[in-house]
Amino acid sequence: MTLVVHKYGGTSVADADRIRSVAKRIVDSYNEGNGVVAVVSAMGRRTDELLGLAAEVSDRSHPREMDMLLTAGERVTMALVAMAIQDLGVAATSFTGSQAGILTTGKHGQAEIVEIRADRVREGLDEGKVVIVAGFQGVDPASKDVTTLGRGGSDATAVALAAALSADRCEIYTDVDGVFTADPRVVPAATKLLELTYEEMLELASAGAGVLMPRSVEFGRRFGIPIHVRSSFHGGEGTLVKEETMEQAVVRGIAHDESEAKLTISRVPDTPGVAASVFEPLAAAGVNVDMIVQNVSHDGSTDISFTVPISMLDVAEREARTVAEAIDAGSVSVDKDIAKVTVVGIGMKTESGIASRMFRILADHDINIQMISTSPIRISCVVAGDRVSEAVKALHSGLGLDDGASA
Amino acid sequence: MTLVVHKYGGTSVADADRIRSVAKRIVDSYNEGNGVVAVVSAMGRRTDELLGLAAEVSDRSHPREMDMLLTAGERVTMALVAMAIQDLGVAATSFTGSQAGILTTGKHGQAEIVEIRADRVREGLDEGKVVIVAGFQGVDPASKDVTTLGRGGSDATAVALAAALSADRCEIYTDVDGVFTADPRVVPAATKLLELTYEEMLELASAGAGVLMPRSVEFGRRFGIPIHVRSSFHGGEGTLVKEETMEQAVVRGIAHDESEAKLTISRVPDTPGVAASVFEPLAAAGVNVDMIVQNVSHDGSTDISFTVPISMLDVAEREARTVAEAIDAGSVSVDKDIAKVTVVGIGMKTESGIASRMFRILADHDINIQMISTSPIRISCVVAGDRVSEAVKALHSGLGLDDGASA
Repeated sequence: MTLVVHKYGGTSVADADRIRSVAKRIVDSYNEGNGVVAVVSAMGRRTDELLGLAAEVSDRSHPREMDMLLTAGERVTMALVAMAIQDLGVAATSFTGSQAGILTTGKHGQAEIVEIRADRVREGLDEGKVVIVAGFQGVDPASKDVTTLGRGGSDATAVALAAALSADRCEIYTDVDGVFTADPRVVPAATKLLELTYEEMLELASAGAGVLMPRSVEFGRRFGIPIHVRSSFHGGEGTLVKEETMEQAVVRGIAHDESEAKLTISRVPDTPGVAASVFEPLAAAGVNVDMIVQNVSHDGSTDISFTVPISMLDVAEREARTVAEAIDAGSVSVDKDIAKVTVVGIGMKTESGIASRMFRILADHDINIQMISTSPIRISCVVAGDRVSEAVKALHSGLGLDDGASA
Repeated sequence: MTLVVHKYGGTSVADADRIRSVAKRIVDSYNEGNGVVAVVSAMGRRTDELLGLAAEVSDRSHPREMDMLLTAGERVTMALVAMAIQDLGVAATSFTGSQAGILTTGKHGQAEIVEIRADRVREGLDEGKVVIVAGFQGVDPASKDVTTLGRGGSDATAVALAAALSADRCEIYTDVDGVFTADPRVVPAATKLLELTYEEMLELASAGAGVLMPRSVEFGRRFGIPIHVRSSFHGGEGTLVKEETMEQAVVRGIAHDESEAKLTISRVPDTPGVAASVFEPLAAAGVNVDMIVQNVSHDGSTDISFTVPISMLDVAEREARTVAEAIDAGSVSVDKDIAKVTVVGIGMKTESGIASRMFRILADHDINIQMISTSPIRISCVVAGDRVSEAVKALHSGLGLDDGASA
């Protein structure tokens, strides 16, 4: 028997009608002879409503109780989806993260899955039932407290569960049709990708493509679970993320990210250990630094620029100023009006010249490049925030993606 | 250390302001040196909203999933109350019914508490924390499925938990000031009772006094836990329900119930076993029969009348007609326009004459008595539905309750 894990996000289960559609889709898959486990998120804006309630009651941080509160959201969805499936004549049973054996670390709000003891899920499947599992949540076996996984947690639940059950694939049902060559809201000519590799998806996800979070892709890669990203609103094929693709695209797609800000510490003494002095305090403060660029030294000092999520900018700036003073560097400057544009393709490993083509295209459009960072299959450039749409469009066209073929 | 269990119903935690008030009240009790466990219900109409959602998704019965759904309600409240308590500087932790070790039978929607393994609750108390427990819910240890306790379930949770923890008392905070000599909406002269016995409270609760459900009173009686029913909106003393009261009132209070209907099967053959033939099928169909009156036999046949909840009337009528045909009885008649008025007092055990005074008072008001049923401390009469307010008022006055003293 083929075993598939479905995942339905908040938009896909936003109301009773959509819940019945989801049930229909699950039952169709079941009736095709598949074993089906479905991971569900909280309905629509339900999580935001619960956050709003908490904010009305308290303006402080209560990590354990916040997780207890938020996990009520998926609990409601999973029960309703199970009911709707039963109404279609198929046995279904729902489990919370804890009941499904999703064991996590104890870090409330950002717990990591460490193990899945899916005995009850397997029993349900063995009894011929569809099993519904609450996404985004688990339990810390040490404290027995309920935890949540943070952003994208339901995807992570689905892929990790697929791995634990040795499922044949994981289908992520979402409100878009799949992974596109670029954000279709920015580039009307963007086309849906039929397939891409885990590596490419990881790079695109890390670079701002919101459709999947990096850690669920990483789970899929590690355990070899193909991830099918597809629409929950119609039956069309989506995008398959897997180990190898038929065609090795040189440029698979373009992602952009407007959620970061740039910090520059000028005149940093160019001595061994100085980078560690700068970034250790930032890591300790929980700031997730993305790109780092250090220029060559002039007169014994250099400039270090790096990007951080705008949400962490205040903390990052405070730490940077403390560090700059401690190491006797120059000023700290902040630029919020930046954006990052990233070109990804597995074929870059073997084909050179994409970077120079990228820089040329941006130059031809008079778009200045502020920072550059590369990996074997990726090139990212930081540009002015108000030029990013133009940059993405120009690259999409210039690298040959407009006609659906890669450069 | 004194250990108290508080219980807050849905009205008491209906919004953020009220949740903060509840937290304040709990913290006040904690700061007086008490160990405090607080059992909470779902916020305001939250349970009805969840029922509404379920009705939108499905018009069938899904007992297991319905319990999964509804238990999300208390989960939200308990987390918010714990947050609000922490904001007042007192450590607090919340537990679901399952986490609190509330083990129940497996009957979804109407589970009974069979055992409480309150280890985690005790640990929390030992650590100096206030412990918040979700009311109305538990877990069936056989299936490991989450269950709900049905109407009044949070009161039952509170009293049973108080018993399991050998608490000194259980305080039921509610939207009324306590137990009254009659429903104050019907009898403006009704006064709050300072105390009454478990037996009296059981009779009043069974006779329609909505403030406490019979089974939580029964728990209190069985384990000797005094139950203090009081307002969550102000600090005044409420009503203490306990084993013995200082004064043995002949008439403690009057309850009435308009939620029942009367069925009569006429010309039932007066032979041994005929009552069993009538009531066995009703019990099997889950109909909760309240009063039963069988008159003396004329010409070898008799009339049997009984009352059932209006919600069960259709089922009851169907069963009654089947039985009537099977035993060759006469017609089945139904009367929905009835009400029951009940006078309760522990002193009736020793003082006779209350029944005849009750009948006289009703007769003086030209109120016809349709059925009579008694226990050692209770007399109930069924009267026409549109006369019940007048009956309650007349009895309250005639039995000397208007001036706050019992007859």
